[in-house]
Amino acid sequence: MKNFITLADLPDFDQTLHLAMELKKQPTQWDSMGRGKTLGLLFFNPSLRTRLSTQKAAQNLGLPTMVMNFSQESWALEFEDGTKMSGLRSEHVKEAAAVVSQYCDMVAIRAFASLSDKEKDEAEIVLKSFAQYASVPIINMESATAHPLQALADAITLKEHQTPHKPKVVLSWAPHPKALPHAVGNSFVNMMGYMEADFVITHPEGYALNPEITKGIECTTDQQKALKDADFVYTKNWCSYEEYGQILRTDDQWMITPEKMKHTNNGKFMHCLPIRRNIVASDGVLDSPNSLVIQQSQNRIYSAQAVLKQLLENE
Amino acid sequence: MKNFITLADLPDFDQTLHLAMELKKQPTQWDSMGRGKTLGLLFFNPSLRTRLSTQKAAQNLGLPTMVMNFSQESWALEFEDGTKMSGLRSEHVKEAAAVVSQYCDMVAIRAFASLSDKEKDEAEIVLKSFAQYASVPIINMESATAHPLQALADAITLKEHQTPHKPKVVLSWAPHPKALPHAVGNSFVNMMGYMEADFVITHPEGYALNPEITKGIECTTDQQKALKDADFVYTKNWCSYEEYGQILRTDDQWMITPEKMKHTNNGKFMHCLPIRRNIVASDGVLDSPNSLVIQQSQNRIYSAQAVLKQLLENE
Amino acid sequence: MKNFITLADLPDFDQTLHLAMELKKQPTQWDSMGRGKTLGLLFFNPSLRTRLSTQKAAQNLGLPTMVMNFSQESWALEFEDGTKMSGLRSEHVKEAAAVVSQYCDMVAIRAFASLSDKEKDEAEIVLKSFAQYASVPIINMESATAHPLQALADAITLKEHQTPHKPKVVLSWAPHPKALPHAVGNSFVNMMGYMEADFVITHPEGYALNPEITKGIECTTDQQKALKDADFVYTKNWCSYEEYGQILRTDDQWMITPEKMKHTNNGKFMHCLPIRRNIVASDGVLDSPNSLVIQQSQNRIYSAQAVLKQLLENE
Repeated sequence: MKNFITLADLPDFDQTLHLAMELKKQPTQWDSMGRGKTLGLLFFNPSLRTRLSTQKAAQNLGLPTMVMNFSQESWALEFEDGTKMSGLRSEHVKEAAAVVSQYCDMVAIRAFASLSDKEKDEAEIVLKSFAQYASVPIINMESATAHPLQALADAITLKEHQTPHKPKVVLSWAPHPKALPHAVGNSFVNMMGYMEADFVITHPEGYALNPEITKGIECTTDQQKALKDADFVYTKNWCSYEEYGQILRTDDQWMITPEKMKHTNNGKFMHCLPIRRNIVASDGVLDSPNSLVIQQSQNRIYSAQAVLKQLLENE
Repeated sequence: MKNFITLADLPDFDQTLHLAMELKKQPTQWDSMGRGKTLGLLFFNPSLRTRLSTQKAAQNLGLPTMVMNFSQESWALEFEDGTKMSGLRSEHVKEAAAVVSQYCDMVAIRAFASLSDKEKDEAEIVLKSFAQYASVPIINMESATAHPLQALADAITLKEHQTPHKPKVVLSWAPHPKALPHAVGNSFVNMMGYMEADFVITHPEGYALNPEITKGIECTTDQQKALKDADFVYTKNWCSYEEYGQILRTDDQWMITPEKMKHTNNGKFMHCLPIRRNIVASDGVLDSPNSLVIQQSQNRIYSAQAVLKQLLENE
Repeated sequence: MKNFITLADLPDFDQTLHLAMELKKQPTQWDSMGRGKTLGLLFFNPSLRTRLSTQKAAQNLGLPTMVMNFSQESWALEFEDGTKMSGLRSEHVKEAAAVVSQYCDMVAIRAFASLSDKEKDEAEIVLKSFAQYASVPIINMESATAHPLQALADAITLKEHQTPHKPKVVLSWAPHPKALPHAVGNSFVNMMGYMEADFVITHPEGYALNPEITKGIECTTDQQKALKDADFVYTKNWCSYEEYGQILRTDDQWMITPEKMKHTNNGKFMHCLPIRRNIVASDGVLDSPNSLVIQQSQNRIYSAQAVLKQLLENE
């Protein structure tokens, strides 16, 4: 694995999942593996779980980290080729990526979608530019269109609650006051491609995800039908993909409530966090023992650690 | 000790003080105690001494730290129960505290008073919410109403300058251009409850601290009388408690000067820092050999280390 | 060496250069030298290379670091003596420096020139005040008038591309849309004083560096003549020194282009980064194999490490 930008970069998904679950049992069994190496964490956007879980994963491997907040601590970066850099951006990613490669043995990056320019977002200009100009592996800590470390943590969580039967997993859109990216939804869909499950996506009119990503997957605008007998309800807001970046509705018809959960098969509730209570899901859902959200966040350590370990072994 | 939110949480004040002084003599004698564990430091407000001294204390114990500035690096938190989170706050403390507990074995938090809502400040909503929803110990790095790590460092400093006689210790209000919290004053008063001393508080009219905290302690508005023969003059500004958050005066009548110090018993000058020179105390006081302010800041390492060590042993 | 504020503080330039090059060959051969000690990194300005390379250098020596961004994380500092601190600055450098000395065994500081007050900038008030009031060594991570860690890295880079003949080294001014400090230019000039080379400075009318620094060095406003047969072209913008802080021109006549590089002796291109492409130098120059800019950034690790190692040995 040269970089970890999407789940498809993993040499073997099942083996990675297995490794992550082994690491959870004995987190520090390879605690001198990272000795003498350095992981750089570059943030272009806020982060709580990703920041801390990736640091903890590195610490479990004895891998020192250096954290850098690009919006506050460093220079604004230019990503376009051939521009006359006379504006606010004082350093080109060509230099920044090559320079960071001198100081770090791996570089993890968070760079959200703009949600204003679909083409640029889909080009994944930040992650792809770093991957192009860096001489060390690049790790995706949520890019414009993908959040594979979250999806891998979600796979661990699903596995930890394995049902005796083939489970029904539902990805349900939920409302939100702000326009949110598709990254978590996309990566969850990609990840479900590796799992044995009946997988259904449900969302209101106008909120279909990128059809190239959901090709061959059952999608319905009937949330009630989708939730029926579900074993897992993965909830997430995203803005419209078709009317890119738009919020088409903010009413609470699609909020997940205890009443809706009653129609599931004693379904588990999942969300990547942060979650807005009583907007995306009501208190009763989040405070129920069937909520797996905290366990999902715990598994972020081991999804990151499984990726870091494989990259360390590559070298 | 489950959490360290106020001095009253310590299992034994005198033993803790003794431990801190032992740690100062041999700071790294338990330098592998924290191995494999992690201390999270969460800042909702600026910090110099607290940030660095707590990190240093952790380092002395071999305890890795992860620092997080909530105002810049993460999501704004919601603390109210049952709200529809449709505003600017995108994560509830219920999730944030539970999530951070997955990554850290202890969480230290700084969250200042608002000084606009007395009831909320006294409810200590940030620290108490974290303590309620976290599954790991919470450490107070200055909350709305208490700064116990400072008070413990002050106790070390007083002990290091023990007088042959029972000392006279004065806590004197001093002027300041901004409204400041009562946290340092409150915790100093609490701490003095564990010390053998004649303790007097002096402040202008309208600046009495919370009477529940100062119950039974001599308070006077006659600064000159209070300073007379004092062995230690602990100076600190706070805004009005009665007219909550108000600044009632900014004149320099209450500033500590070398002239005033002359009436003390060759008294030592103490302040928690940061201090505004020639407003709170004049240059001549701060630059005098009788000023203990730098030593107080040094002792912040050992007060933090004594608390961290006890929490590590708890587990 | 008490502090490292300029190159002149080094006990022996040549030995330091030699040490740095040895460290590059075996970066971790002294990886327990910093054990139990702490390096504080204080930033008053943005930093990418300096931040990460200094951290990496410390890590190679087993020296723990604590990073502090003064503009966001701490209190604003007062540097003037005797002021009544009634404004925005809530802590005096007298206290800040003495306090930080309690927690760190060495303190590295970045504090750029204001470019508005020549006298204050030349007084190096931030670095000098810290050096005066700290009880531990102070390291310059770019001050108002000097950037010696960069110059030392540049010396390593020059040495690594040694020519069979005495090389011709040109320092050429280049355009830039913002007013930039003279620190890098000054320290490069100082560094060249230790090297065997024909050294020429070229800049447009009005852009002469401080004549005290360039005394005895050939300076010309004829860039073409200066570049002729050059072995190394070190490029850097700075604002006017005479008309202090002013930008006198922003046209691209002085931009370094492949056409200009043709007149050199297959000259190597150098710049400290960050660089604005197609303003300071064109893409063709930066993307050419003759560009040494990434190697310069790599050598920042070893210039910092050579300084840190000597300071650690001092103690």
